[in-house]
Amino acid sequence: VDEFDLIQRYFRRPAPGVAVGIGDDGAIVGLPPGHELVVVVDTLVAGVHFPDDITAEDVGYRALAVNLSDIAAMGAEPAWMTLALTLPEADAAWLDGFAAGLFGLADRYGVSLIGGDTTRGPLTVTVEVLGHLPAGLRLLRGGARAGDVLFVSGTLGDAAAGLADVDAKHAAARQLRHRFLRPEPRVGLGLTLAGRATAAIDISDGLLADLGHVCRASGVGAVVETERLPLSAALLECVGFEQALRYALHGGDDYELCLTLPPDADLDEPEITRIGTITAEPGIRLLADGRFTEVAADGYRHFGDAP
Amino acid sequence: VDEFDLIQRYFRRPAPGVAVGIGDDGAIVGLPPGHELVVVVDTLVAGVHFPDDITAEDVGYRALAVNLSDIAAMGAEPAWMTLALTLPEADAAWLDGFAAGLFGLADRYGVSLIGGDTTRGPLTVTVEVLGHLPAGLRLLRGGARAGDVLFVSGTLGDAAAGLADVDAKHAAARQLRHRFLRPEPRVGLGLTLAGRATAAIDISDGLLADLGHVCRASGVGAVVETERLPLSAALLECVGFEQALRYALHGGDDYELCLTLPPDADLDEPEITRIGTITAEPGIRLLADGRFTEVAADGYRHFGDAP
Repeated sequence: VDEFDLIQRYFRRPAPGVAVGIGDDGAIVGLPPGHELVVVVDTLVAGVHFPDDITAEDVGYRALAVNLSDIAAMGAEPAWMTLALTLPEADAAWLDGFAAGLFGLADRYGVSLIGGDTTRGPLTVTVEVLGHLPAGLRLLRGGARAGDVLFVSGTLGDAAAGLADVDAKHAAARQLRHRFLRPEPRVGLGLTLAGRATAAIDISDGLLADLGHVCRASGVGAVVETERLPLSAALLECVGFEQALRYALHGGDDYELCLTLPPDADLDEPEITRIGTITAEPGIRLLADGRFTEVAADGYRHFGDAP
Repeated sequence: VDEFDLIQRYFRRPAPGVAVGIGDDGAIVGLPPGHELVVVVDTLVAGVHFPDDITAEDVGYRALAVNLSDIAAMGAEPAWMTLALTLPEADAAWLDGFAAGLFGLADRYGVSLIGGDTTRGPLTVTVEVLGHLPAGLRLLRGGARAGDVLFVSGTLGDAAAGLADVDAKHAAARQLRHRFLRPEPRVGLGLTLAGRATAAIDISDGLLADLGHVCRASGVGAVVETERLPLSAALLECVGFEQALRYALHGGDDYELCLTLPPDADLDEPEITRIGTITAEPGIRLLADGRFTEVAADGYRHFGDAP
């Protein structure tokens, strides 16, 4: 079998509503009237962005999930994706698994593959997701205002613990591992927040690092009440409160949303937890036991997540 | 200097007309009313898609040029790009050169960088270009009809000869090397052809290979009159007629356009040369000295140019 045929077999799939998909020099799609285009892109390098020993299916899932998380943080509806896949060899079993992980998630969010490039080299996966939102209904980092209320979705720290070497014999540890391997992008929540939240970002580098981006972009500071941080029972059981708190503040890979709402926002949204307040004073302070601690807005980060 | 700051220094530039550019979770852009979005993507791997010894500036130029060539083949106007750059290290001199090559070309075509990702790993460059065209004015591979006239732009075979080991002491050889290193995307020609040509493709894999794609997509065949093939004086001087013909038919990397026009098309376009005819009979035949030869539609091709 020619390598081209092999690759086409895996990635040529029906793309409903796409004017011109894979198979020409480029793809052509139409945006809904009155909508703007949203573009996100993320690269995963084996051994850098994920452990070498995770399955091909997990790699395929992850390559799309991290991009859908960015789409969610923009408040957009995902629609199309392209795939630039660099592989050491055209291994059918690996491609099977990769495609299952990628398209399993893509189908759940109605995302069609419309183009790509497959090249030989060290395993590197770049997925770009294109989405859209009604013109003007943007969810950006720079809109937080003093007095806004700070929220996060889901629970924090699970993925960082799941990436670390926790004892996989226990159900709780397996649950954390799953949170690392299969982050669930908050696309629906992002759509709910568009036009309501004043700012949003996805937590890929850790809460403090990503909240720091929001604060700098908005020209504000924040107080985080550590006792309010949503910690899962599995995380507390596996690593105890002190370490759970460290993972929640500094650990990356959660792909939850961190967002700010005006104090009078009337949003009944069970997915999110209030964790603090936006302040006019710059910097991030932790509030615990009635005492403030100034913290550096750092967190786990790679060589570069965005130029 | 933090590696993040370094990278931002190179890739954060003014992006006129872009609603939201680099610096948020994603970019937001608006399409001109009545236009569709065109998406192309290509990955370059060092040592696979270009020799290891070409300059960083040449790599930056090439990464965009190959994508603009696809945009040209779609008849679209390029507008935005994203860059996924995987680098062994954040080397300032290399980034300087790369950015100069990339943005030098981008500025000429009015293309703004709106997003990207920079990661550590073996040198791999994925550029995606987004463009647009008036809805319905598509230039695809599948529209060639029996009786259409076959054209190519520019001259063929120069890049393949320039990639091969030709004696760089001669001016003609340096000219071929330049054709390989600095392919000029035919964006203006593509815009002229949209709505006029029945089919178009860019010649990245070699004339016969890419014409083969057009024939299969259109359900037709073609006759190529080899004596009509546009060969440069530099190519003929360096390698002689027989080898020049082989390069012109099979050599890749020219990034010229191969296109078909209806027989009654009235197009006064000095950039293109008539080289043959589209036939109802499938397959590609060469016509030379009044004799036909059936040929295989092969050419230089990598592991995969498009999934």
